[in-house]
Amino acid sequence: MARTDIEVADLVETARGGLGDPGSSRAVARLISLIEDASDASTGRLREVMAALSPYVGHAHVIGLTGAPGVGKSTTTSALVRELRAAGKRVAVLAVDPSSPFSGGALLGDRIRMTDHAGDRGVYIRSMASRGHLGGLAWSTPQAIRVLDGAGFDVVLVETVGVGQSEVEIAGLADTTLVLLAPGMGDGIQAAKAGILEIGDLYVVNKADRDGAMKVRRDLRGMLALAARPEGAWKPAVLPISAQSHMGLGDLVAAIAEHRAWLDGSGMLAVRRARRAREEIEAIAVAALRARWELQGRDRLDELSAAVAGGRLDPYAAADTLLG
Amino acid sequence: MARTDIEVADLVETARGGLGDPGSSRAVARLISLIEDASDASTGRLREVMAALSPYVGHAHVIGLTGAPGVGKSTTTSALVRELRAAGKRVAVLAVDPSSPFSGGALLGDRIRMTDHAGDRGVYIRSMASRGHLGGLAWSTPQAIRVLDGAGFDVVLVETVGVGQSEVEIAGLADTTLVLLAPGMGDGIQAAKAGILEIGDLYVVNKADRDGAMKVRRDLRGMLALAARPEGAWKPAVLPISAQSHMGLGDLVAAIAEHRAWLDGSGMLAVRRARRAREEIEAIAVAALRARWELQGRDRLDELSAAVAGGRLDPYAAADTLLG
Repeated sequence: MARTDIEVADLVETARGGLGDPGSSRAVARLISLIEDASDASTGRLREVMAALSPYVGHAHVIGLTGAPGVGKSTTTSALVRELRAAGKRVAVLAVDPSSPFSGGALLGDRIRMTDHAGDRGVYIRSMASRGHLGGLAWSTPQAIRVLDGAGFDVVLVETVGVGQSEVEIAGLADTTLVLLAPGMGDGIQAAKAGILEIGDLYVVNKADRDGAMKVRRDLRGMLALAARPEGAWKPAVLPISAQSHMGLGDLVAAIAEHRAWLDGSGMLAVRRARRAREEIEAIAVAALRARWELQGRDRLDELSAAVAGGRLDPYAAADTLLG
Repeated sequence: MARTDIEVADLVETARGGLGDPGSSRAVARLISLIEDASDASTGRLREVMAALSPYVGHAHVIGLTGAPGVGKSTTTSALVRELRAAGKRVAVLAVDPSSPFSGGALLGDRIRMTDHAGDRGVYIRSMASRGHLGGLAWSTPQAIRVLDGAGFDVVLVETVGVGQSEVEIAGLADTTLVLLAPGMGDGIQAAKAGILEIGDLYVVNKADRDGAMKVRRDLRGMLALAARPEGAWKPAVLPISAQSHMGLGDLVAAIAEHRAWLDGSGMLAVRRARRAREEIEAIAVAALRARWELQGRDRLDELSAAVAGGRLDPYAAADTLLG
C-alpha cells in the first residue's frame, strides 16, 4: 500500500542514496508501489513523486528486451545484468507482465530465477503486472522507468514478453530495443510478415549453439538488408549469443554501447526520449479525463450509455456530447 | 480500403438483406473495413455508418469466447457455430487478434480451419487484428460488434486468445462470456490465482475425454463454489465438451440460452450493454482527443514533451497544461 506518512522528498533522496545505502532499494520499491497503487484518490501523492524526480531523469540508458515465450528472455536478462555489473553499472530490471490470467505462472518462475542477483545491491529487480492498472501498461511503465532513472540507475532494462501490443509499446519507450529470437520458434519469414523488423535496434539470436540458429541469423540478416533505410539511419545488427553458457554477452554489451553512441551522435536520443515523454503525458491526460468523466460526469455518462445501448443515440454523437 | 463512392444507407440496407441476399456478406465486410481503415481523415464516414446502424442494434446475443493458446478455441468456435446453425441462428464470428508479431501465424491457421462454414451464407467470419488500429482493441471491437449486430445476426461470437488484457476486455464487451480450458494447460490453482474466476459466465472444459479433464472440472467447481456471490447472482456452470468429436455442444448451447434468460430476467442484460456502450463512448472520445492533440496541438505537445524529457517539467504538470 502507498505510505503517506513519509515525505516524498526524503523518499526520493533515500532512493538516490545508491549502493552504499541499504535503504535505497526499499525506497525505490516504495516509489514504484505508489505507481502501482495509484487510484483517483492517491494520484496527488504520485504527482509529488514525479515532480521531485523530474530534475534527476535522463541519466539512465533504457534498454527494452522483448521476445516470444521460450526464447530465453529471463536467462538473457540475467546474463546481461551480470555483464553490465562486471562493467560497474548499476542496473534496474523492470519485468513488465502484460500477460493474462492464463500465463501468469511463467513470469513468477522467471522472477525466481533472477535470485542470481539477490545479494547484489547494484541490481534492482521489479515485476509489474499491467492488468488492473489505471491506464494499463502505457500508463505505469514510463512512470516506473522514470522512478528508476531518477533513482540513479545507469541502465534500466525493461523486459516484456512478446504478446499483444506490449512489445511495440516497449520499443516506443526504450532508447535501445533488443529483439530476442531463438531457433525453433517459427521461421524468419513469419517474423518478417509480423513486423518485428520495424522495432529492433539489435536482434539477438539466443541458443546460438543449437541447430537452426545459423538459419535464423541468415534469414534475419537477409530481411534486414532488404529494408529501405534512410541515409544515416541505424543498421540493426544480428548478434548470436548463448545466455545459458554466457557466450557472446561481451559483444552484445559492446553493440548496445555502439547504439547508444549512435543515438547521442545522431540526435535520436532526444527524439526518442521526447516521444517517450509525449506518450507519458498523453496517457496521464487520458487517465485524468477518464477520472473526471467517472467522478463528475457519472450520471451524464450513464445516461448516454443507456441511450447508445438502446439504439436511441450512436456512440459518436454520445462522445461529442461528452467532450462538448 | 474504405470505399466512399457508395451511400452508407445503401450499404447498411444491403448488409441487413440477410440470408437471401448474396451481397449481404460483402456489405458487412465493407462496413467492418471502414472501421479497420479509420483514420482521422475517414472517421467522418464511420460516424455516418454508426448513425445509420444505431436503430437496428440490440438484437444479437454477443458471446465472448476466450482461452489460452492450445485449449481448442477455433475448434470449439467451429463446433458451436455448427450447433447454432442447426438451431436456425445466423451467426457472425469476430476473431479478435491481440497477438504480437511473434504469434500472428497461429491465428491465420485458425481462420483456415473455419472454412468448414465457407459455403454457408448464414455464417459470417471475420478476423480483426487490433495492432495498429486507432485506439486498438478497445476502439475497434465494440464498433465491429455494432456492425454485426446491426446487420441482423442472431449471435455474434467474439473469439480472442487469452493473452494480455484482451480476455478481460472481451468479457467486458460480451453478454455471455465463455472461458475455455483444457486438461494439461496448467492446474486450477494457477487459474484461480490469475483471476479467470471473475470473468466467466460459463466455464467450458474442452478435450473432456482426455486424462486430467475430470481434475480440471473438479478444481474449477471447487473454486467457483468458494467465491462469494451476492443473492440472485448468476452461478457459473462448468461444462465438459469435446469440440473435436462434437460432444456436449447441445448442453453448451442450452447453458448459453439459460444464461441469456437470466440476463433478461435479472435486468443484467441492460446493465452489461450500457457498460459496453459506455466503453465505446469513452474510447471514441479518447481517440477524438488524441486526434485533436495531434492535429491542433502538435507544436504545443512537442514543446511539452521536450521539457519533460529534459527534466524541466514533470509529466503531470505537462498533462495539466495539455488539458487546461
